[in-house]
Amino acid sequence: MYKVKVYVTLRESVLDPQGTAVKGALHSLSYSEVQDVRIGKFMELIVEKSERDINELVREMCEKLLANTVIEDYRYEIEEVVVQ
Amino acid sequence: MYKVKVYVTLRESVLDPQGTAVKGALHSLSYSEVQDVRIGKFMELIVEKSERDINELVREMCEKLLANTVIEDYRYEIEEVVVQ
Repeated sequence: MYKVKVYVTLRESVLDPQGTAVKGALHSLSYSEVQDVRIGKFMELIVEKSERDINELVREMCEKLLANTVIEDYRYEIEEVVVQ
Repeated sequence: MYKVKVYVTLRESVLDPQGTAVKGALHSLSYSEVQDVRIGKFMELIVEKSERDINELVREMCEKLLANTVIEDYRYEIEEVVVQ
């Protein structure tokens, strides 16, 4: 079994209105030290072992569904979980 | 300057309908190996140095705005960025 962590972030060149809103909210709470906020997604998947290579599987899932590669970048970490 | 990464996830006991929907979509794309999906948020903040302790500052921002601690957990990583 694998525990897969996927991080999806907007590409640098893409505007992030949600991040801008959060930055504004932090400033109005007097956290004026905050210069920039970018918001992304964090996904945790539990994947069973199969004949397919886990790396390839995760990359495929990201490309097809989890990330919109036109405007988003993704990275992932795979951790093998040993079930006792 | 600090680069702060904040990960906000739903607590274990809280249902995640968005995760369930993504799992369903992955299954219908024939990724039946996927047993569970949980979706959270990933935020990247750029914070200027100030007199306040960065750890305390980030914890405060998480508690007050970035996470809803009733249903969400958060963790963060702080990285110091040296501007050349």
